[in-house]
Amino acid sequence: MAAAGAGLPATTGRGRPRSAAADSSIVETVLRLLEEGTTLGELSMERIARSAGVGKATVYRRWANKDALLIDVMRAIDEPLPPLAGTSVREDLVVLLEVIRHRGLAKRSSAVMRNVIGVIQSSPQLWRQYHDTVIRTRREAMYAVLRRGMRTGEIRDDIDVRLLVDLFAGPMLSRALLYERAPLEDGLSEQIVDAVLEGVRPSGHPASRRP
Amino acid sequence: MAAAGAGLPATTGRGRPRSAAADSSIVETVLRLLEEGTTLGELSMERIARSAGVGKATVYRRWANKDALLIDVMRAIDEPLPPLAGTSVREDLVVLLEVIRHRGLAKRSSAVMRNVIGVIQSSPQLWRQYHDTVIRTRREAMYAVLRRGMRTGEIRDDIDVRLLVDLFAGPMLSRALLYERAPLEDGLSEQIVDAVLEGVRPSGHPASRRP
Repeated sequence: MAAAGAGLPATTGRGRPRSAAADSSIVETVLRLLEEGTTLGELSMERIARSAGVGKATVYRRWANKDALLIDVMRAIDEPLPPLAGTSVREDLVVLLEVIRHRGLAKRSSAVMRNVIGVIQSSPQLWRQYHDTVIRTRREAMYAVLRRGMRTGEIRDDIDVRLLVDLFAGPMLSRALLYERAPLEDGLSEQIVDAVLEGVRPSGHPASRRP
Repeated sequence: MAAAGAGLPATTGRGRPRSAAADSSIVETVLRLLEEGTTLGELSMERIARSAGVGKATVYRRWANKDALLIDVMRAIDEPLPPLAGTSVREDLVVLLEVIRHRGLAKRSSAVMRNVIGVIQSSPQLWRQYHDTVIRTRREAMYAVLRRGMRTGEIRDDIDVRLLVDLFAGPMLSRALLYERAPLEDGLSEQIVDAVLEGVRPSGHPASRRP
C-alpha cells in the first residue's frame, strides 16, 4: 500500500505525529465505502473521517483534499510493478504488458476500480496527477527496457523511444481501457510484443526494408 | 451533420412530421450552450428545448433522453471519415490514423469537445452506444483496409485482424485520448504505420523471422 504523499510534504511539528497505520486505515475506509456503493458525490472528507473513526483534521493533515486522497486510493488497488528478469527484452516487455492486461481485467470485474478510474479519468487535474505518479513510473520502466534493447541490438535504434513505448503499450491500453468488451485473453501480451517486434508486413514483400 | 437516430425508430404518424431542420437546430443549441459554459448537470431537456425555441415534446419526439441527444451532438462535431484511395494499404492506414490524430488535436483545443467526450467516456452506457455507432464504423473501415492488404500480400495473414487494428490504432489512441500532453505532431501517423509494418527488431537480429 502506497503511503507516499501526492506531492504533499509530510507535516511534522504540529499535532500528533503522522501515523502510517492511520493513513492506511483511511484508504481502506474509502475502499470499503466505495464497495458498499457510496457514490463519489456522497464521499465527503467528513464522512470518510467519521467512517474511519478519526477526526477530520487527521484526514486533512495527510491529504489536502478528496482528489489527493483518491489518488492514493487508486495506488492502493494498483498491482505493483513486478520485478523484471533483465535478460530478454521481449520477456520484460511481456511482463510490463501483463500489468496493463491485469489492470484491464480487474477494472472489468471490480465496480470500485471502475468508479475510481472513471473519476480520475473524468477530471483532467486528477488524471494528470495520476499520470505524473503511477503511469510515469510504468512508462519509465518500459523506456529503460527499450533503451537496453537498443544497446543490446534487440531493438532498432532509429525510432524515438517514446514512440516505441506507444507501439507496445498502445494496443494493450486500447483494449484494457477504451474498449470494455474487447477480449483480454491469455497470450495477448506475447502476441502484441511479437507482432510489433517482427512487423506485420510479409517478409517477402517488395517494400520491406529487410534484406 | 448527423441526423441519424441513436437507435431510435423515426416516429411518424403522431404529432407533426419530423423536421431535420429542427433536429439540427437542437443539436446546434446544445453545442452553443456547452460553448457558453453550461455544465452537463445544468443541461436538462427542458432547458435545451427552451433555448432552441421549441417545445419539450419536439425534443422528446426525436431523442428518448439526454444521453441519446448527446450521442448525436458528439457525432455532429466528429470529423467524417475521409474517402480512401484504395490503392496502397499503407496510405489508407495513414488516412485513418490521421482521423484519430485530428480528433485528439480537436479535443485539446476545444473545451466543448473535451466535455462531451468526457461525459460519454464516464458513462459505460453512453460509451457503449457511441462505440456501437461511430467507433465501430471507423474500426470496420480499418478492418476492410487490412483484409484487402492480406489479399494483396501487403499485410501478413497470420495475425488476427482485430489485433492488427489495435496494433495500428492503439498507439495513436493512447496519445490522442489517454495522454493529453503527448505530442501529436505531423508525420506521426506515417511513423506509426511504417514502424508497425516493418517491425522494431533490427533486421539482422538472430531472432528475426525474416530471411
